[in-house]
Amino acid sequence: MTDLTRITGEMPIGASMVHGEGGCFRALDPATGEVLEPAFGSAQESDVARACELARLAFDSYRNTTPDVRANFLEAIAENIVALGETLVQRACAETGLPRARIEGERGRTVAQLRLFASRVRVGDGIDARIDPAFPERQPLPRADIRMQRIAVGPVAVFGASNFPLAFSVAGGDTASALAVGCPVVVKAHPAHPGTSELVGRTIQAAVRANGLPEGVFSLLFDDGFVVGAALVAHPAIKAVGFTGSRRGGVALMKIAAARAEPIPVYAEMSSVNPVFLLPAALAARGKELAIGFVESLTLGVGQFCTNPGLVLGVAGAAFEQFKEDAAVLLTTRSASVMLTPGIAAAYASGIDRLNDHPVARAAGRGEGEGDGCAASARAQAALYAVDADNLLADPSLGEEVFGPCSLLVACRDVVQMREVAEYFEGQLTATLQFDEADDNAARTLLPVLERKAGRIVANGWPTGVEVCDAMVHGGPYPATSDGRSTSVGTAAIERFLRPVCYQNLPQTLLPDALRDANPLCLPRRVDGVLAGSESVTEAG
Amino acid sequence: MTDLTRITGEMPIGASMVHGEGGCFRALDPATGEVLEPAFGSAQESDVARACELARLAFDSYRNTTPDVRANFLEAIAENIVALGETLVQRACAETGLPRARIEGERGRTVAQLRLFASRVRVGDGIDARIDPAFPERQPLPRADIRMQRIAVGPVAVFGASNFPLAFSVAGGDTASALAVGCPVVVKAHPAHPGTSELVGRTIQAAVRANGLPEGVFSLLFDDGFVVGAALVAHPAIKAVGFTGSRRGGVALMKIAAARAEPIPVYAEMSSVNPVFLLPAALAARGKELAIGFVESLTLGVGQFCTNPGLVLGVAGAAFEQFKEDAAVLLTTRSASVMLTPGIAAAYASGIDRLNDHPVARAAGRGEGEGDGCAASARAQAALYAVDADNLLADPSLGEEVFGPCSLLVACRDVVQMREVAEYFEGQLTATLQFDEADDNAARTLLPVLERKAGRIVANGWPTGVEVCDAMVHGGPYPATSDGRSTSVGTAAIERFLRPVCYQNLPQTLLPDALRDANPLCLPRRVDGVLAGSESVTEAG
Repeated sequence: MTDLTRITGEMPIGASMVHGEGGCFRALDPATGEVLEPAFGSAQESDVARACELARLAFDSYRNTTPDVRANFLEAIAENIVALGETLVQRACAETGLPRARIEGERGRTVAQLRLFASRVRVGDGIDARIDPAFPERQPLPRADIRMQRIAVGPVAVFGASNFPLAFSVAGGDTASALAVGCPVVVKAHPAHPGTSELVGRTIQAAVRANGLPEGVFSLLFDDGFVVGAALVAHPAIKAVGFTGSRRGGVALMKIAAARAEPIPVYAEMSSVNPVFLLPAALAARGKELAIGFVESLTLGVGQFCTNPGLVLGVAGAAFEQFKEDAAVLLTTRSASVMLTPGIAAAYASGIDRLNDHPVARAAGRGEGEGDGCAASARAQAALYAVDADNLLADPSLGEEVFGPCSLLVACRDVVQMREVAEYFEGQLTATLQFDEADDNAARTLLPVLERKAGRIVANGWPTGVEVCDAMVHGGPYPATSDGRSTSVGTAAIERFLRPVCYQNLPQTLLPDALRDANPLCLPRRVDGVLAGSESVTEAG
Repeated sequence: MTDLTRITGEMPIGASMVHGEGGCFRALDPATGEVLEPAFGSAQESDVARACELARLAFDSYRNTTPDVRANFLEAIAENIVALGETLVQRACAETGLPRARIEGERGRTVAQLRLFASRVRVGDGIDARIDPAFPERQPLPRADIRMQRIAVGPVAVFGASNFPLAFSVAGGDTASALAVGCPVVVKAHPAHPGTSELVGRTIQAAVRANGLPEGVFSLLFDDGFVVGAALVAHPAIKAVGFTGSRRGGVALMKIAAARAEPIPVYAEMSSVNPVFLLPAALAARGKELAIGFVESLTLGVGQFCTNPGLVLGVAGAAFEQFKEDAAVLLTTRSASVMLTPGIAAAYASGIDRLNDHPVARAAGRGEGEGDGCAASARAQAALYAVDADNLLADPSLGEEVFGPCSLLVACRDVVQMREVAEYFEGQLTATLQFDEADDNAARTLLPVLERKAGRIVANGWPTGVEVCDAMVHGGPYPATSDGRSTSVGTAAIERFLRPVCYQNLPQTLLPDALRDANPLCLPRRVDGVLAGSESVTEAG
């Protein structure tokens, strides 16, 4: 048995470990500024081609494995990740500056997600098997025997995210969705946590081998620039893309995918300010409590969540002023914390500068400047700004996401103006309503707008914290994501890498297992328009 | 009651009939060359804006109607179309040159499709309701109450197709899919059948009124150029596009949609040569019968179907030569027939010229030149060409679609080369296998490739004839369509204009009906991971 806990700077490409010759880079501990060994070799064009070609070769065989085989494979990956133990936790903490509890929690979520997907794959989720039996006596024309299933779309390119080194990276949601339905995966590791990526990548490679799957089912590519990712998305063998990151990055991938000879779908989760609406009665009744919850959500994980509450709307007046003051006071107790990378810290600082320099944004609160021992330039000091709704409506740039613990308080004249501001928003991952019974009418007025604008509507809670379950939607209209028809979290994500194929008059021996009369996979199927249990089809017509 | 059988050249925009001031055009009877009255006024930018704005205003109200209301609406449209009687049949025949039986059949299909979608909407298809009840005792963190449904994506732009004046036009598949799930629709009529479009558009307008729906649920726009369609797809109120037509047209719409400030999904069904594989044993055993079936499918509707068999592959040898000869002889009995428009006839003629001039394509058969009394330039004379597989592999242009009754016979060295050619194909709507038992291994070799390349695989039949049922897929990888994850025919098309929205901790009074505990819509729902019948949720957790 190979030791899976080594970090060598090599990429798992199929069954091999490859030292990339496209230049090298090292990870950085953002908390200490310390450079972490070893050096990682960036992939070259030939590595991209090799990973994609292996994925292409593996595809027909892998997509035709039984659901059980793929479920076992996902469970083996989960088990291997757990077995990495301390090595993984320590490396992930060092590469991200995230605290141990957070990394352990994220590992738990990642592993639970793989197991949940395995359980859903086992019962046939996503296959959507349908059988319309032949109807030879029909007038004026007979009906053929027509059957349908959803099959894997092809090899998928997945981009690791900086802010979730496990749950949205090498073995994260997109990888789990793709592998679950039979798509080989080529991951472009995020350069901020290459060691974490290598560790997790090796465990997937080992699970491929242990489960007797074709080597091309999984490969991992390193690069600290953009060339490898661009080449990956442009490669003809790749048939879909999963990405979590910046709007600029996501839009760049959308353009590459659309410009291909064969354009392919891109699921990019990009940008959201996650507006929170504090309705009047709730604000009057429990403003202090709301301020506490808000500051907690805003500063969680140094504000580095896609669902961070970056915009809070209230009706101008004493209660909203008090909320602002309460939040500002609470904020001063929050020490500045290290961000994921120097680049993210610098972008945060420049976002803050932009607001400080803005003629109408008023600074409304600041977190503690001293922090957890890292260099000041690596830390984010939480920040609160205030504007009037008229200002925001006049200058859309005020509403742009500042990734980190920064939020904009927006004073509206009344609920009517709140709705007006809501209509003006771009697509969002989440929208949150804080309301009491007396706010019911206001909530009712806002809800239709929020349904159009967001993928998830949170009532009397906070947007951070995304449950992995059947009913979760982590998605939303552009630019929250590139494709609002899908979710990147929860079991509905299993559908994103599938496409329907129909079989007309195929004999039983040539039909895929999912569609044979005997129903060997015991799938729920829609037979002649009616959802049937895991029965076989006994007669046609 | 307004007389719905008048044709005035006006566009139904919301509740009004509008005479477009953007220039005028008339329909043409392609069989006689006769110009048909009245003149139709093309829409101007302001008409596009008005239709889109009305659709935007109607959206929240329309999408929140109950499934029953929308089902009744679809059924009312169907009824109104039937009530148009002879007026519709005669006008559609005159505008398209299609025979009465074909138009009557297409009307039957269009009406049946609306009724089928109504029945599926009634039982909740597409809503995909999911409920994960709260789990307050969960460790380490409680789970919130999380619920999900799919909601309408927004107003949809639909483009009528030239070759299906009813089933893929004003009240065709995309309109039915969009209206079924709560999307207002703005149709751009195909300029080849504006009278048919106006008639059907008026019946939808009447059904909107009779069912008490907001006027913006439906509008129709005329234009004999490209400006109106481009403005429609670019309009911010439009959130998705349905199109059936040429590759050039579809790709142009994809580019406009991708360049918007908010890119939107485009479902364009564009281009397919629908390869047919004649496997050796089948060809030897029943070559004559295959030639009859092939010529029948090739010349059906003057070859003007998206699923027309434009490419036939066989293993070189006596049986394939005999098939070619048989097909050529049969073809000579087929008289030339009028095409849908002079433009389509001219494009067909130039496609034939291209093959005639090609250095390696060999003319292998020609239909009867004399035809049904129309001008020779309006008619298509069926045509057959032959090449060797090596030629096709060397020159991809040989495999390009010639819209009309033209097909290319491709002689392969063996089944291995057949597979090689299959791998080289772009995405297709269909792929057909003719095989006998002795061909089983060959079929098994080809099937995985065909699954990757096509939306529908036909065994021992012909690709023309698309059943409207649950298991149908009329779609396929690019360039067959712009988005292979969907189908434009069959009840699975109901899903294309939906997106998921999640509700976290919303009180019962504010939840949408589909997600209330009491299940007032009697939907099948996934509760705590298990598919439940139309029950209510009695306890949480």
